[in-house]
Amino acid sequence: MASDERESRTGHGEVVPLVHKVEVPPKRNVFQEIGSELWELFFHDAPVDQFKGQTKMKKGILSLKFIFPILDWIPKYNYKMLIADIISGCTIASLAIPQDLGYAKLAGVPPVNGLYSSFVPPLVYAVFGSSRDIAIGPVAVVSLLMGTLLKQEIDPIQDPVNYLKLAFTATFFCGIFQAGLGVFRLGFVTEFLSHAAIVGFMAGAAITIALQQLKGLLNITNFTTDTDFVSVMRSVFGHIDEWNWRSIVIGLAFLAFLITTKTMVGHIKKGINPVSIGDIFFSGSLAAAGAKVGLIAAIIALTEGVAIGRTFAALRDYHIDGNKEMIAFGVMNLCGSFTSCYVATGSFSRSAVNYQSGVCTAMSNVIMAIVVLVTLLVLTPLFKYTPNCILSAIIISAVLSLIDLRAALLIWKIDKFDFLACLGAFVGVFFVSVEIGLLIAVCISFVKILYNVTRPHTARLGNIPGTNVYRNVTQYPNATLVPGILAIRVDAAIYFSNSNYIHDKILHYLEEEMQRLSKSDGAPIKYLIVDLTPVTNIDTSGIIAFEELEKTLKRKNIQLAFANPGASVIIKLDDSKFLAHLGSEWVFFTVSEAIQVCTMLLNQSASEQV
Amino acid sequence: MASDERESRTGHGEVVPLVHKVEVPPKRNVFQEIGSELWELFFHDAPVDQFKGQTKMKKGILSLKFIFPILDWIPKYNYKMLIADIISGCTIASLAIPQDLGYAKLAGVPPVNGLYSSFVPPLVYAVFGSSRDIAIGPVAVVSLLMGTLLKQEIDPIQDPVNYLKLAFTATFFCGIFQAGLGVFRLGFVTEFLSHAAIVGFMAGAAITIALQQLKGLLNITNFTTDTDFVSVMRSVFGHIDEWNWRSIVIGLAFLAFLITTKTMVGHIKKGINPVSIGDIFFSGSLAAAGAKVGLIAAIIALTEGVAIGRTFAALRDYHIDGNKEMIAFGVMNLCGSFTSCYVATGSFSRSAVNYQSGVCTAMSNVIMAIVVLVTLLVLTPLFKYTPNCILSAIIISAVLSLIDLRAALLIWKIDKFDFLACLGAFVGVFFVSVEIGLLIAVCISFVKILYNVTRPHTARLGNIPGTNVYRNVTQYPNATLVPGILAIRVDAAIYFSNSNYIHDKILHYLEEEMQRLSKSDGAPIKYLIVDLTPVTNIDTSGIIAFEELEKTLKRKNIQLAFANPGASVIIKLDDSKFLAHLGSEWVFFTVSEAIQVCTMLLNQSASEQV
Repeated sequence: MASDERESRTGHGEVVPLVHKVEVPPKRNVFQEIGSELWELFFHDAPVDQFKGQTKMKKGILSLKFIFPILDWIPKYNYKMLIADIISGCTIASLAIPQDLGYAKLAGVPPVNGLYSSFVPPLVYAVFGSSRDIAIGPVAVVSLLMGTLLKQEIDPIQDPVNYLKLAFTATFFCGIFQAGLGVFRLGFVTEFLSHAAIVGFMAGAAITIALQQLKGLLNITNFTTDTDFVSVMRSVFGHIDEWNWRSIVIGLAFLAFLITTKTMVGHIKKGINPVSIGDIFFSGSLAAAGAKVGLIAAIIALTEGVAIGRTFAALRDYHIDGNKEMIAFGVMNLCGSFTSCYVATGSFSRSAVNYQSGVCTAMSNVIMAIVVLVTLLVLTPLFKYTPNCILSAIIISAVLSLIDLRAALLIWKIDKFDFLACLGAFVGVFFVSVEIGLLIAVCISFVKILYNVTRPHTARLGNIPGTNVYRNVTQYPNATLVPGILAIRVDAAIYFSNSNYIHDKILHYLEEEMQRLSKSDGAPIKYLIVDLTPVTNIDTSGIIAFEELEKTLKRKNIQLAFANPGASVIIKLDDSKFLAHLGSEWVFFTVSEAIQVCTMLLNQSASEQV
Repeated sequence: MASDERESRTGHGEVVPLVHKVEVPPKRNVFQEIGSELWELFFHDAPVDQFKGQTKMKKGILSLKFIFPILDWIPKYNYKMLIADIISGCTIASLAIPQDLGYAKLAGVPPVNGLYSSFVPPLVYAVFGSSRDIAIGPVAVVSLLMGTLLKQEIDPIQDPVNYLKLAFTATFFCGIFQAGLGVFRLGFVTEFLSHAAIVGFMAGAAITIALQQLKGLLNITNFTTDTDFVSVMRSVFGHIDEWNWRSIVIGLAFLAFLITTKTMVGHIKKGINPVSIGDIFFSGSLAAAGAKVGLIAAIIALTEGVAIGRTFAALRDYHIDGNKEMIAFGVMNLCGSFTSCYVATGSFSRSAVNYQSGVCTAMSNVIMAIVVLVTLLVLTPLFKYTPNCILSAIIISAVLSLIDLRAALLIWKIDKFDFLACLGAFVGVFFVSVEIGLLIAVCISFVKILYNVTRPHTARLGNIPGTNVYRNVTQYPNATLVPGILAIRVDAAIYFSNSNYIHDKILHYLEEEMQRLSKSDGAPIKYLIVDLTPVTNIDTSGIIAFEELEKTLKRKNIQLAFANPGASVIIKLDDSKFLAHLGSEWVFFTVSEAIQVCTMLLNQSASEQV
C-alpha cells in the first residue's frame, strides 16, 4: 500500500525503487456511479441526513417540521420575541404600504392589488419559509418586468379586466414553476445568473423605474409605454408644454423629504382580498402568454428572494435550503394568485430594515400582514387624494437603493470579464428593455462559463529550491526546471470541450522548450510529466487526446508520464486500456517522485553512453 | 523569497516559523489581463510564432505558405509521391463516384450535382487545406441533414428548380459561416459537440439513411418523406403489395457483394459543372431559410471534417490548425456554391481508404477530381440504366461504416453520462428527426458542461503516512486525519455557478465531522484549511462565499486558512481586501505547512490550558 516499499520495472528494463503507489479505488457499479452524480446534483445539502437513526415518532415530527418550518420556532416562541417582531413588523409595514401602491403601478395593476400582495403571501411564507429576516411582498424589479411583459399581450388601459386576469395567470404559473423547481430540487438553475450580472441588471432596472416616474413627477399624460432610455427622454422633453410646475415642486420637495427622512403615503378602496381563482386563464393563448411571463418572473423573483434569504442567514448563522425556500415561494405565489395578488418575493430594502429593527422570526411578516389588513379594512379612504407625484417620489427613493455602486467597483477590481457582464446587463436594460437586459445577463454568464470550460489553465512546473514541491514557474519565478524533463500541470477536468486545447497546449509547451534548448544547447527533453492533481475527471474525448499525445511523443522519443491522478481519472485510464498501453510504472504518486525516477533513468542512460 | 526562513505573527499573537511564502505575482493592468484571456481564446496555438525574428522576405514567403499550404509541399513534390497520390486518388474516386450519386439523392438534388461536388471542392481544398489525408466530397450525414431541412422549405418533386437554387443558397451561406468562423478564429464552437454525442448522432443518421434506402431496395413508390423510424416502417409494411421481388433480390445480392468486395456503380448526364452564381438567393425569405440550413450544415460539416483532419494528422505527426482548416472548408464551399455543388466536407470512410492506399499529399484530391471530371465528360452515359436498388445498396454499405459500436462500448465503460449523450442523440435521430437528434446532442453536451461547472469535486484530505503529502481520504483509505484540523480541497475554479455549492459543501464536511466527533469524544475542530491548489480562478461570487464562510466559522470559533492559492486567486483575494481581513499569515505554501503550523498552535493552547 501507500507506505510500502515497492519495486517497479520501467520500459527500459531497469528496476527502480518507488515509494508510493497510486491507488485504483474499488470500482462502483453503474447505479452507484450515476446515483452519486445525481445525488450531488439534487441533494448535496443532504436534507435527509437528520432523519437517519431516528425513531418513527421522531421521524414524523422532523418531516412535519421539514415541510412547515413554522413548527420549528412556534413552540419556543415567547413574549420577548413577540415584542421584537411587532416592532419590526410595523416598521416594514410602514415601508411596504406606500411601496405596494407604487409597485402596483409599475406592474400595471390597480394599487389595491399591491396591498393584497402584502397580505396573503407574507402569511403563507410565515408557515412554509425558513428565513427569519426576509420581508415578503411585491418588489420593484419583478413589478417592472411583469408590467413590461404583460403590456406586450394586453393593453392595461383599453382592457384593464383581462390585463388583471392575465396578471393573476402569470402569478399562478410563477408559483407553479417556483414550487416545481423546489420539489424537483432544480434550484441550481438560478445559480447560472452571476452576481455581477444581477448587480448590473438591478441598477439598470432601478434607473429605468426612476425615469418612468418622471411621468408622475412632471405630470405628463401622453407618456411612452416603452422603458428604454431614448423613448423615455423623448417623452419627457417632447412634452415640455405639459410639465406642471406644482407637481414638480411637490414631487421634488417630497423626494428630498423621503431621501432624508424615509416617511410614507398611498391611496385606495376598502376591503379584504377578493377570491380570484376564477379569473385565471388555464387554457388558450393567454394561458401560454401568462406561463411565459410567469416563468421569467419566477426566475427573477427566486434569484432575488433566495439570495436575500441566504445573505441574512449567513449573518445570523442559520442554514437556508434553497430548494425548500423555492417551494415556500411557489406555494405563496400560488395562494396569492387565488386571492388577487400578483408576484411577491423577498424585498431587499425591507428585509434590511426588518433585520436592523431586530426581527426574531417570520412572525414579523404576520404582523406586517395584519397591519396591511387593517389598512385595507379601515385606512384606505385616507389615501384617496395622494398625488401621483408623491407616489413617484416614493418609488424613486425605494429603487435608488438597488443601485450598488460599491459592488460594481469591487467587480471591476476583481474580474474584468465579470464587469463586462455587469455592464452588459445594465446597458441592455437601460437602452433597450428589461427582457433584453436579462437576456444579455444570462448570455454573458453562459459565455463566461463556456470560456472557462474551453480554455482551462495550464502551468509549467518547476522545483521550489530546498523542497520537493513543484509549482507554476510563472507564479514562482525562482522555481528551477529539471534538465531533460518537462512537467506540466492541467488545472481542470478534461472533457470534450477542452481536450483538443489541452492536447495542443501541452505540445506547444514542448515545442517552445525544444526551440529554447536548440538555441542554448541544453539537454533534449526525454520525459514529459503531466501533473493530474487538479484533473478531477476525464471523458472519452480526453482519453483520446492523451492517446494521440502519447503517439506524438513516442515519435519524438519522449516518454509520457502521469503524476497523481485522482480516483475517477485512474479508473477511466484503466477502463480504457490506456493505462495498460502506457504501462502503470509511468503513473506516479507525486510530481516529485516522477521527476526523481526520470532523473535517475536519464543519468543511467547517460552513463551507459559514456 | 521561497527558500528564506521567515517568521509570521498569527492571530493569537504567537510567533510561528514559516518556511515558505505564497508569492503574490506582479499585477497586470486591465489590457494585459483581458488581452491574455482573449489571446488564449483565439490564438492559443500561436499561429504567428513562426514569423518572429524573420526577415521581411522570409515573412512574406511564410505568409503566402500560411494562406496557401499548397506552396509548402509543391516545391518538394516528386515522381514517387505522384505515383502514390495517383493510386490513392483513383481509389477514392472509385468510391466517391457511386457514393456521390447516392448522397445527392439523400440531399434531394439531381445525381449529377453530387458528382459536381466531387470535382470543384477537392481542387479548392488542395490549394487551401493543410490535411494530406482527407478525401473531400459530399458525405452521407450532411446530405441527409440538408435534404431533411430543405424539404421543409420547398418540395423537391413539385418545384425542383427552386429546390436546387435553395440548395446552392444553403451551400453559399455554409461557406460564409465556415470561413467566418475560421477568420475570426471561432473554431472552438465546434468543441461543444462532444465525441459521444457525435458517435450517437452518426449511428442514428446511418441507420436512418439505411432505412430510407428500403424505398429503392423494395421498389416502393409512395414512400414517406419523414425520416423517423415509425414513419419509415409504416411506409415499408403498409406497401407490401408494391414490393418487387426482382428489385429485392438484385439489391440484396448486390449489397452482399458490396459488403464483401467493396465495388461501385452509378448513372448521369454529360458535361462539366455549370456556373450557378445566378441561382443563389441573396435576399428574401428563401435567403434566410438557406442561411439557417447553411449554418447547421456548416457546423456538422466542420465537426466531421476537422475531426477527420486532426485524427490523421496525429497518426502521421503533423499539425492541423483548426481555424485555418475552417477557412479552407469555407472557401471550398463558397466556390462550390458558384459551380453547382452542394456542401462538401471530409468523408471519414474515403479518408481512411485514402490513408490506407498510401496517400502522400492533397494531390490525391486533385487526381480524384480529374477522375470525376473524366467521368462527367465521358462515362456518364454508362450509368444511365443503374437500377435504384443498386444505388440504395451502395448507400447502405457506405453508411453502415458510420456505426461505431466499439466507440459506443468504450463510452459506456468510461463515462455513463457520456453514454447518455450518445444514446440521446441516437434515439433523437432514429425516432424523431435529424434536427431533433442534433438538438438533443447539443443540449446533453451543454448539460454535461453545466453539471460539471455547478457541482465540482471536493475532497477531504488526510496525511499519507511517512510523507508530507495530503490526499483524498476516499481514494487513499489509509490516509490519516489530523486531530483538531479539517483539510478540504476544492477541485475547480470558484465562480458564481458553484460558489454557493462549495460554501455549503465545506460546511457540510464540517458538520459531518463535528457529529462524528461528538459521538467519539474527539478533539473539536479548531482549524479549517482549504487547499486551493486546483482553484485556478475565483470571481466576486466566490470571494463573497469565502467571506460568508469565514463569518460562519468565526462564530463557531474555527480559524479559516488557505493553502497554495494560485496567481490569479491570490491577486483577487488581495484586491478584494479579504486577504487583509483574514490575515496573510493564514495563507500557506502547502497543506503540509498549514497543518504543521496549526498543530503547533493547538499544542500551545493545550499546554496553556494545562
